[in-house]
Amino acid sequence: MAEEVVSDQAGLKAEISDFKRRRIREEACHLFYQHGYESTTLDAIAAALHVTKPFIYGYYKNKSELLLDICSTGISLSLAALEEPDLEKHSHADKLRRVVERITKLILRYQEYIVVYVREEKNLAPDQARLIRKQRNAFDHRLAELLMNGKRSGEFTVDDPLMTANTIGGMLTWLSLWFVPGGKWSETEISAHLMRMVGAITTHHTLEPAYAP
Amino acid sequence: MAEEVVSDQAGLKAEISDFKRRRIREEACHLFYQHGYESTTLDAIAAALHVTKPFIYGYYKNKSELLLDICSTGISLSLAALEEPDLEKHSHADKLRRVVERITKLILRYQEYIVVYVREEKNLAPDQARLIRKQRNAFDHRLAELLMNGKRSGEFTVDDPLMTANTIGGMLTWLSLWFVPGGKWSETEISAHLMRMVGAITTHHTLEPAYAP
Repeated sequence: MAEEVVSDQAGLKAEISDFKRRRIREEACHLFYQHGYESTTLDAIAAALHVTKPFIYGYYKNKSELLLDICSTGISLSLAALEEPDLEKHSHADKLRRVVERITKLILRYQEYIVVYVREEKNLAPDQARLIRKQRNAFDHRLAELLMNGKRSGEFTVDDPLMTANTIGGMLTWLSLWFVPGGKWSETEISAHLMRMVGAITTHHTLEPAYAP
Repeated sequence: MAEEVVSDQAGLKAEISDFKRRRIREEACHLFYQHGYESTTLDAIAAALHVTKPFIYGYYKNKSELLLDICSTGISLSLAALEEPDLEKHSHADKLRRVVERITKLILRYQEYIVVYVREEKNLAPDQARLIRKQRNAFDHRLAELLMNGKRSGEFTVDDPLMTANTIGGMLTWLSLWFVPGGKWSETEISAHLMRMVGAITTHHTLEPAYAP
């Protein structure tokens, strides 16, 4: 019994630690989004959270580690969405629909993270940038695999699965760069539109050859 | 005769002035691309061109005016590509193919300009940002009009021309963010792929409704 209580406390401690880390990351992301990475100091992040700078150092070694964590958020979650075990029981086309729907939601939820990633990637250290590029490659290859499997089963007609996967990733990332919450288009409309676009580029039939110039 | 000579000189003067302006813009864009807008001074731009800062002031009032010029390069050229009069004689589908092909070329040629636009748009003054948004809206609407005309003539099947135009714009912009010159994919492969993607999303047939979750 006593042990169970201890374990409960340890669990709660871990949760609180995770929560603090997430809040630091969230606030940093928001300030990077508003003022840019270079113009945002750790002091400004600490001030926004009403904590001291040493408090932040308890969770992040430096600003650069924070940027890495922010930049990898979108791609890590997207990779996880592609690998959810509950997808296994579905057809390839259904898998693709579910994945696109989930990632669309993630992008709208983490919009500022994705925008900061696109804008500030250049400020990552070379090994950090390589790490994220590796994740992005893994995403493209994993998605291309799904397209190839669906091509084999006759559900998809794609000419180049890897390039098509890159295009789908691009469509989803693009969303973060222009979507205005509460604007002209609702999340439901966006999601339905993306589903149509992804459906079209994965099930189109032989196209006429390009025009002669 | 004398007048013609004067007019020739005036023409050359204007050309040289344009050339200088373009070189300043090019160098500024490259430095913004490498080091970021905020970290790049007019002194650094002058030094890279081996000119004085007052020389730059002869062409650009300040760094912000340079950023506006750089950010509007891609969208201005894309709008112009959509409005080239030689397109008129073609079918809507051929028009679209030609436009996509031309803009793909522009994006590869002006890749750093587009990347700087995406990253540094946030540093534009509000009225400058509005100006560029207006151009982007004009582009989307103009392209949507082409899609609607082609829908009427039975060449395209698009559900939402404006959203589809936005998606095409996004696919093209996305290219600037990941394309590596001399890398895995050649310009020809990219162009052919984009043509297939745009073909697919403008000629797909009724898709099955989204799955029930």
